[in-house]
Amino acid sequence: MTTTPAPDATIAETTPEELEQVLRRAAVAAPAWAATQADARARALVAVADALQAHADELVPVGMVETGLAEARLRGELLRTAVQLRLFAETIVDGSYLDVRIDEADPDFALGARPELRRVLVPLGPVVNFAASNFPFAFSVAGGDTASILAAGCPVILKVHDGHPRLSLATAAVVAAALRASGAPDGVFQTIIGQEAGVVALQDERVRAGSFTGSLRAGRILADLAAARPVPIPFFGELGSVNPVFVTQTALDESATAIATGFVTSVAGSAGQLCTKPGFVYLPDGAGLDGSIREAAAAVPEHRLLNDRISAGYEARRDTILGTDGVRVIAEGSLRIDEDGDGWATPTIVAVSLDALRAGRHALLDEAFGPLSILVEVPAGTAFAPLVPEFCEGNLTATLHAGADETSDDLVELVQQLSAHAGRVLFGGWPTGVAVTPAMQHGGPWPATTNDSSTSVGTAAITRFLRPVAFQNMPDRFLPEVLRSSATGVPRTVAPAGESTHWGEAAER
Amino acid sequence: MTTTPAPDATIAETTPEELEQVLRRAAVAAPAWAATQADARARALVAVADALQAHADELVPVGMVETGLAEARLRGELLRTAVQLRLFAETIVDGSYLDVRIDEADPDFALGARPELRRVLVPLGPVVNFAASNFPFAFSVAGGDTASILAAGCPVILKVHDGHPRLSLATAAVVAAALRASGAPDGVFQTIIGQEAGVVALQDERVRAGSFTGSLRAGRILADLAAARPVPIPFFGELGSVNPVFVTQTALDESATAIATGFVTSVAGSAGQLCTKPGFVYLPDGAGLDGSIREAAAAVPEHRLLNDRISAGYEARRDTILGTDGVRVIAEGSLRIDEDGDGWATPTIVAVSLDALRAGRHALLDEAFGPLSILVEVPAGTAFAPLVPEFCEGNLTATLHAGADETSDDLVELVQQLSAHAGRVLFGGWPTGVAVTPAMQHGGPWPATTNDSSTSVGTAAITRFLRPVAFQNMPDRFLPEVLRSSATGVPRTVAPAGESTHWGEAAER
Repeated sequence: MTTTPAPDATIAETTPEELEQVLRRAAVAAPAWAATQADARARALVAVADALQAHADELVPVGMVETGLAEARLRGELLRTAVQLRLFAETIVDGSYLDVRIDEADPDFALGARPELRRVLVPLGPVVNFAASNFPFAFSVAGGDTASILAAGCPVILKVHDGHPRLSLATAAVVAAALRASGAPDGVFQTIIGQEAGVVALQDERVRAGSFTGSLRAGRILADLAAARPVPIPFFGELGSVNPVFVTQTALDESATAIATGFVTSVAGSAGQLCTKPGFVYLPDGAGLDGSIREAAAAVPEHRLLNDRISAGYEARRDTILGTDGVRVIAEGSLRIDEDGDGWATPTIVAVSLDALRAGRHALLDEAFGPLSILVEVPAGTAFAPLVPEFCEGNLTATLHAGADETSDDLVELVQQLSAHAGRVLFGGWPTGVAVTPAMQHGGPWPATTNDSSTSVGTAAITRFLRPVAFQNMPDRFLPEVLRSSATGVPRTVAPAGESTHWGEAAER
Repeated sequence: MTTTPAPDATIAETTPEELEQVLRRAAVAAPAWAATQADARARALVAVADALQAHADELVPVGMVETGLAEARLRGELLRTAVQLRLFAETIVDGSYLDVRIDEADPDFALGARPELRRVLVPLGPVVNFAASNFPFAFSVAGGDTASILAAGCPVILKVHDGHPRLSLATAAVVAAALRASGAPDGVFQTIIGQEAGVVALQDERVRAGSFTGSLRAGRILADLAAARPVPIPFFGELGSVNPVFVTQTALDESATAIATGFVTSVAGSAGQLCTKPGFVYLPDGAGLDGSIREAAAAVPEHRLLNDRISAGYEARRDTILGTDGVRVIAEGSLRIDEDGDGWATPTIVAVSLDALRAGRHALLDEAFGPLSILVEVPAGTAFAPLVPEFCEGNLTATLHAGADETSDDLVELVQQLSAHAGRVLFGGWPTGVAVTPAMQHGGPWPATTNDSSTSVGTAAITRFLRPVAFQNMPDRFLPEVLRSSATGVPRTVAPAGESTHWGEAAER
């Protein structure tokens, strides 16, 4: 049984005294968890995955009540959460992520005798992880950040999102019990509640990194706090994105209706409350999609928004956009607040000319977190590529719809521009739906993230919480086990002696 | 011929108008250099290495006059600089550094059909690189940062160190000519002069990263500026280190004299103006090294310090340490300022008891940049491991001297503690002398660096200036060449279809 708080229970914020205990336990757990063998850590992650799936019938209804998300969506998200944990378990057993590098000692190295060096990635220490509102499983208590933090060998201090506190505590109880049963050290996984506790924890000297998924405003505040500490720490924030899409005339000629319906489905899913929702679609003037879009939008049922802050933010953005000069409504959609204060919405799709976007850019270009998207009607003969630096900041994704065999200098240049402004560039399809795989990149230049050298989805996410250490001429008895001469199984990149001889020769000229 | 400025020439600071031109050229060069094939970039790096070696006889004397460093040291450093460039040339031709990952499309993936994803690291864009004073070749104009920035495919804007401006401009002329002759785009390598220009450049929106080797104070100011930009950028600062060394009684029993002389040699080299100089040696009380140390120190000739700021800083630190209660002088050494204002020093070696270090920690624990080191005499029976968290902040290196077969729980724990506080942990030997190799880690927790997930020496340094981009279902014609189906030679990690089936089964329970 989980220990889900009753619906009417007051959920108290973490007190300073409780927080001090949390930080102390995390600091004590850090070396013990770091020293835990990879296969034992992997078993613990799998145990958490098993436990979450075993408790799905209890957890999903709690999430439905708290977030307004549909059962199918939450069941799928819980499955994804479990798969993420299993994927990280496989990642750490494989060991490639440790990037083990060995330089053999080389008395003839070009710069004089070279020592033996053995290099490996080691865990940073306790990490504060700020849960997201819009993925109450996959980016929350046991989500991708937690999975990669634990997989890396770091304790996690999970700051509960106040949008789904009951689900968070219920999930946390499942996670904690599974970790305890699998022998993980006490203090490896803890939750804290309240903004103040999160801010204090992020600034505590025992904390070595932060991760966050949420708004640009909150993310920037936290990133600045992390950078301003006496001892600065890395902060990995995923902040937001408008995910531009470019559609050519040839793509429309080949599949206009599929594009219109795919677009509306992508905008409407989870009421548009996804960081990969397509926010702007640049397409030729006169594309003729209005009818198909209006029809598809009309078929979308009302969907509850996650919480009152998001409802209020969406209402303000939507009002601003609808009130901007040159905005033409294709599907007006709706937004109403019910007697409980919950917002309910259907998709709002509008169009602007390129000139109107230029004139109204300060009103239009921000992210609208909810089921709203803007078509940008580009005059025939206008090159797409220059629009990217003109209108696009950093994004998580960017998409090109072109003909199956279409190409041009402009499109080649467009893809280059998109890859300079986004972490993932799609050909066809829609950016919502993020595969949890080794090659996924879920990140991108500011303001999509605070740190575009990292990803928060996929196995590469683990490297956020690791740093390299090289051991020089160190006997096996003092080395971490994976670096010992006797170690097997973990891939190593070896620099043999004798390879640099030609540099020495070059140097003697 | 190089264009070394005359000794009495005034070297003007970069004006705002000149800086704007530099930034504009760098921004234009960025996509062109990023699109340059790896083998062409490699040839450009090799051309720079060849040119530097060909101009050694002109450059080294200029460096000797400006820095006071000895000819052999500077010739060795120029060779190292050339080897670094060659090593990065090999790194980019090999292509492993791109971390290419490919997920095959998988209709049966555990979470539903998975798209094809192709992931690669791409260059960040223009980087401002603040040169160091103490390595006028290897961490300056054409040093390791410049080599790794260029290798990554980024333009470099090199902020000249004011300690060796004539050498900097002469080196820059050699580098620029070699790059031009090898066909590199205009604007790939540029220099700027003056603190104000560096600060403005770091904050310019066209600049995408910063690198720095220098003092904690300056590095913190620049790191804070980089973090506070409207669009924050990564900043890789290598700031300083005291490089603790721990010596056991057994090590002394086996080789006391070699330890004493090795220690003095390491402290005295380049007048101790190395970021890896051993600053503290913890050893058993009554180790009996005084005589050997005094003798070795007395044999060290006076060495000029790099510049008047460093002389003044060293004088102040040395006075503070010599004036602290409980400090016992083993070799007093000397520091004098000559009629030209240059400082000249011989090694100063002092000892303190563990209790005196505790009492005087605020005066004693900072880095002394110059030929001064402190022995810490630890009472018999005191465990070493707990001293690390008590006295050591983040360091570039940490060293253990123990007996050839000696081990104990304390020593195992000590090495763990050292690896938690340093980027490189040595057994025996001395930390000065940094191999430029694949497994080198030259970095460490704050305040050793601003970013301990990176290294500034060795081939791994290239990843500082790259970020990942994933292409989803992208046809070959729009892909970067290394990701195309036809590409050969660059290693890829492939996730085949069908591997995740068991996760799906687990999920259905």
